[in-house]
Amino acid sequence: MSPLRPRRADRQTWIQKLNVLRTLKLTVEYDGTNYVGWQRQAEGVSIQGLLEEALQPFEGGPVTVHGAGRTDAGVHALGQVASVRTNAGHDVETIQRALNAVLPEDVRITGVVDAAPGFHARFDAVAKIYEYRIVNASYVSAFEHRYVWHVPGRLDVEAMKEGAAALRGRHDFSAFQATGGDTGSAERTIFSIEVDGTCPRLVVRVEGDGFLRHMVRTIAGTLVDVGLGRWPASQVAQILAGRDRTKAGRAAPPNGLFLVRVRY
Amino acid sequence: MSPLRPRRADRQTWIQKLNVLRTLKLTVEYDGTNYVGWQRQAEGVSIQGLLEEALQPFEGGPVTVHGAGRTDAGVHALGQVASVRTNAGHDVETIQRALNAVLPEDVRITGVVDAAPGFHARFDAVAKIYEYRIVNASYVSAFEHRYVWHVPGRLDVEAMKEGAAALRGRHDFSAFQATGGDTGSAERTIFSIEVDGTCPRLVVRVEGDGFLRHMVRTIAGTLVDVGLGRWPASQVAQILAGRDRTKAGRAAPPNGLFLVRVRY
Repeated sequence: MSPLRPRRADRQTWIQKLNVLRTLKLTVEYDGTNYVGWQRQAEGVSIQGLLEEALQPFEGGPVTVHGAGRTDAGVHALGQVASVRTNAGHDVETIQRALNAVLPEDVRITGVVDAAPGFHARFDAVAKIYEYRIVNASYVSAFEHRYVWHVPGRLDVEAMKEGAAALRGRHDFSAFQATGGDTGSAERTIFSIEVDGTCPRLVVRVEGDGFLRHMVRTIAGTLVDVGLGRWPASQVAQILAGRDRTKAGRAAPPNGLFLVRVRY
Repeated sequence: MSPLRPRRADRQTWIQKLNVLRTLKLTVEYDGTNYVGWQRQAEGVSIQGLLEEALQPFEGGPVTVHGAGRTDAGVHALGQVASVRTNAGHDVETIQRALNAVLPEDVRITGVVDAAPGFHARFDAVAKIYEYRIVNASYVSAFEHRYVWHVPGRLDVEAMKEGAAALRGRHDFSAFQATGGDTGSAERTIFSIEVDGTCPRLVVRVEGDGFLRHMVRTIAGTLVDVGLGRWPASQVAQILAGRDRTKAGRAAPPNGLFLVRVRY
């Protein structure tokens, strides 16, 4: 063997040394049904924990993965983004294939790219898009029940659209925040919010610069209350202005919520 | 209260007496992942068992439900049909709503109608349509893995179409029957069989007058072997003619199979 060509084990170490602290950007899709959410918890399996475990063999030791959105238990993702600093020396296709080989089938890596050094999935995000899915019918398909909120009562979609419009722009969203949530500023900007779809399938699609804990679910729950006629559409602006969580609607269940995309 | 209008409990009995042994036709959708299949088994939960339990309160005693297709463990249905003779006196909408209220969410009654007396879901069926779904890509979506067969190797779809064509018509399908299956005639008619869809999603759609145990899965497995280049397309006709199960391909996994519709 040529002295210039190191043996496999040595070559691996040598590539790793050349690549010390490279930053990877992972795009992740998951069915959240069986998980405690994105974030590592004392009990139960989290998406973050699964990714960190799956990346360990590349790193040869513990790694920390940062996610763009800390989705709650039962919430799904089509395009969650995660960043990780690693000394893994493999090409991105190999990393993607290897991760998908060890991850459970309801968590898939749909993309791996090298990011600029210092890229951080959460802090560098400029916008996130969430979808909240509702089925407004007497029953839900056996294949859909894990991915929608079943609302049997007839919804007034026009009233929901009118209510949603009041949420556009920069506001203090305290009224739509989980009680006991973060204590920082509750100011967020909603760039767009639409109530879309054709009966019986409805989607509340919202794009913003950031979301408070349970914010999208509380928006969906409040708009459904408007759609059911519990409140007039004009009440949404009043709830927002009041900044009082107890005045907004219930948080819609987690299984209708999808983190669709993160923009950088 | 008018003497002509019986009290609720009496009225129920009176309606039931008027309706003795009415026959209902149920259309059933299910995600087969968590079940031992259509048929009642000594162990585990079956779709038939769930329906019989759900119908008991209407009957006031045990009932027997007959299904058009005895789908295996893990196989799904979009339009399974079941028949039941019952003295339930309720209107069909009430029966549908009540069944969906007690059945698990991955089993849904999508239709209930009164059928002709003596209607039998299995013996009266003139055709059944099955779909076998394949994803031909390096990985499968987190939301699809329970409903498709993941075939990562590149498939030659034209060869699969050519192979499928050999199966049309009336044949002895012994080569495509599960070993230890029924001992009766293995003659069946395939009215149509198509390999359809756009990469990476493929569907083998087959309509026939009846199917032997594992027949659709063995057809799908054999066509995938052709698609992977293990055999030329012309081999399918030879396998069929040979009537020898050991010469056909493996049975494709159950989770890609859907009973789509039953014709009467």
